[in-house]
Amino acid sequence: MTDALKIGIAGLGTVGASLARIVQTRANALAIACGRPLTITAVSARSKGKDRGFDLDGIAWFDNPVEMAETADIDVLVELIGGAEGAADQSVRAALARGLHVVTANKALLAKHGVALAKMAEEKGLLLNYEAAVAGGIPVIKTLRESLTGNHFSRLYGIMNGTCNYILTRMEKEGLSFADCLKEAQRLGYAEADPTFDIEGNDTAHKLAILTTLAFGSQIAADEIYLEGISNISIDDIQAAHDLGYRIKLLGVALKTATGIEQRVHPTMVPLDSVIAQVDGVTNAVALESDILGELLMVGPGAGGNATASAVLGDITDIAKSRPGAQQVPILGRPAHLLEPYAKAEMTLHEGGYFIRLSVVDRAGVFASIATRMAENNISLESIVQHAKSAASGDESKNIILVTHATMEHSVRQAVAAIKGEGYLLGEPQVIRIERTKSA
Amino acid sequence: MTDALKIGIAGLGTVGASLARIVQTRANALAIACGRPLTITAVSARSKGKDRGFDLDGIAWFDNPVEMAETADIDVLVELIGGAEGAADQSVRAALARGLHVVTANKALLAKHGVALAKMAEEKGLLLNYEAAVAGGIPVIKTLRESLTGNHFSRLYGIMNGTCNYILTRMEKEGLSFADCLKEAQRLGYAEADPTFDIEGNDTAHKLAILTTLAFGSQIAADEIYLEGISNISIDDIQAAHDLGYRIKLLGVALKTATGIEQRVHPTMVPLDSVIAQVDGVTNAVALESDILGELLMVGPGAGGNATASAVLGDITDIAKSRPGAQQVPILGRPAHLLEPYAKAEMTLHEGGYFIRLSVVDRAGVFASIATRMAENNISLESIVQHAKSAASGDESKNIILVTHATMEHSVRQAVAAIKGEGYLLGEPQVIRIERTKSA
Repeated sequence: MTDALKIGIAGLGTVGASLARIVQTRANALAIACGRPLTITAVSARSKGKDRGFDLDGIAWFDNPVEMAETADIDVLVELIGGAEGAADQSVRAALARGLHVVTANKALLAKHGVALAKMAEEKGLLLNYEAAVAGGIPVIKTLRESLTGNHFSRLYGIMNGTCNYILTRMEKEGLSFADCLKEAQRLGYAEADPTFDIEGNDTAHKLAILTTLAFGSQIAADEIYLEGISNISIDDIQAAHDLGYRIKLLGVALKTATGIEQRVHPTMVPLDSVIAQVDGVTNAVALESDILGELLMVGPGAGGNATASAVLGDITDIAKSRPGAQQVPILGRPAHLLEPYAKAEMTLHEGGYFIRLSVVDRAGVFASIATRMAENNISLESIVQHAKSAASGDESKNIILVTHATMEHSVRQAVAAIKGEGYLLGEPQVIRIERTKSA
Repeated sequence: MTDALKIGIAGLGTVGASLARIVQTRANALAIACGRPLTITAVSARSKGKDRGFDLDGIAWFDNPVEMAETADIDVLVELIGGAEGAADQSVRAALARGLHVVTANKALLAKHGVALAKMAEEKGLLLNYEAAVAGGIPVIKTLRESLTGNHFSRLYGIMNGTCNYILTRMEKEGLSFADCLKEAQRLGYAEADPTFDIEGNDTAHKLAILTTLAFGSQIAADEIYLEGISNISIDDIQAAHDLGYRIKLLGVALKTATGIEQRVHPTMVPLDSVIAQVDGVTNAVALESDILGELLMVGPGAGGNATASAVLGDITDIAKSRPGAQQVPILGRPAHLLEPYAKAEMTLHEGGYFIRLSVVDRAGVFASIATRMAENNISLESIVQHAKSAASGDESKNIILVTHATMEHSVRQAVAAIKGEGYLLGEPQVIRIERTKSA
């Protein structure tokens, strides 16, 4: 048995503490699986006094994670601080500069600095592993980086934010409003006090940007993602979706088109009987579509201390099994200097089905006007449903729900703008994209 | 860029030919991803004349795969011959003896000789990769071997035979009999001329045995698996299952119990709204339950030339990225000499819910007799459904369907044996186990 792999953990929140406990309590099994022991030799966090359920004996304590990365007796830095800048970024850079392998769960850091960090690691022959950064315990990074080499990807999509999926699931199952479900999620610890980052789709966008790079070989472009959150999804939408054979999920989607890569995060209608429609609560799911393999769907816990620690531990054991300078898994699927520039497909060119819900004044001619605006924009309709009364509006209102055949985003936008100009709408029109899924 | 990885392919059926085409047509992308070129330097098959869509120029041809393994200028042998003995076994052993890495898609070989082959590979520091052997393109081997290190597994289960899942799906969707669906599957190439190995569960058992070893660290015990096929599943069963909120799938299940490991392959009732219940047609799915991660479900193509070739290619690229003597991923999750003896949990001690369908003569006292036999064996019933007439029987018959709460297999067997002795049964009783699933 060779030398132990010396681990330094920066950040001892839920994930870090869980990881430390597992490494200590399963030392024998891990040593057998890795062919060498794993040992935590340094940790860094804000308050040393707190009992985190693992033994600090023989472990060097650092108040400053950057100092730990620069000076501690470690082979690998495990960065669990979070955030795209500051201590997380500095400690990862310090570790790579010093010749240490890095494991991180930090999606924001990778979405912003992933390419630069990959270059640093690759120039020194170091490993930079980040399985936990996307979809928690689901091994989607390893699958893209290692299992599906040689495949050409056409599309990937997934439920990558547990907070949103929990809220949407509760809204449908309990008939509660978005606001009520958000409050409940906050009470249960599934949503932050400031939930903006989750519910507006930014968190999903960070994860999507990383997967897009792995699948399509282009530079990370998290700022180029079309974003719509779930805060304006109503019970009416969820009920209407159900009646039409759909369920609403917040999906992140990356799609190769003739004009470039389309990256988008928005509430999405998926067929009720699809596999991904059954993914409930805080569970995540990622679907990968490629030409050799076909479609692969992975479903599992997307967050939580233990599930995330499991992914981090997998990354650490991969490093333990490697030998210095021995392996060159490209960090982002291909060497960072060979990543292609990101070619953005314009969202107005998006093509697909649309669900359009219009709350309108109940008077003659409205229906004909709507139909005319659609026809003028060459939008053909798959179904039209008219509900006598909108739950959200007064007595004289009506919900008109249109489902379009595949059409262009700009056509839908023009048609909806024209309808808005007619003066019979009560409130904002609701437009939700429909995603065609195969087995998933 | 370092030296090319020289590949020898033994067996040029659908998978081998697909693999060869991909390696040749995607040479550049593969070289970038692996940091070195992949090149096919030798192949072996029965008939050289056939056009398989790839260029044989510069590739050494061998009529005998064992001779290829023993003498060809290759770094890795890709064994795609199939079968537990003969040329497949001999060529793999010859390759390992000679110091070559091996990639195989051969579940039968691994189920029978996996431990011995792993020992050979590990003694020489060689890689033996077999992602394609279980669930085709789904990366379940890599996930168990690499991603979930440190996890303790409680259960794994899956749909691992596309033929059976196709037949069961068609029976439900079209209302056709087992025999009709089997014929259709044969016509479409989803089932062999002699389908016994698939429909009786042997194929699933081979795959299950490999996963069990990876998850539980015990020796491969394919011969110790409880087996029931799908050939006696009727439309009555499928319809009754549906009415009760279940769907019937052929599952392979491995479960850690107090007395050992329970390995079983049988038709299984899974909840209609579970994710795995939506897995249709030839698609496969594997669920892994472990204490750190929680539950992970992977769904994807379980067979087919391209999907299988994708998995084989992932295995080859892992070898290309490794360096001689550099990496020691234990072939079976832990070093083969440290695998524990297999401790078999007796099937009679299996605990779970049961669906029992009895076709009975429609006369007074029958129902009371059945209820009494159940009570005598301490079986408590969750629901009882009585259908006026069995489609399969005459006018005087009745279908009685019982769903039990969790009970013991031996109790069910005793109760059913007692009922059989009463003389009012028409045909064999149908007993189908119910599997509790979580998010999957």
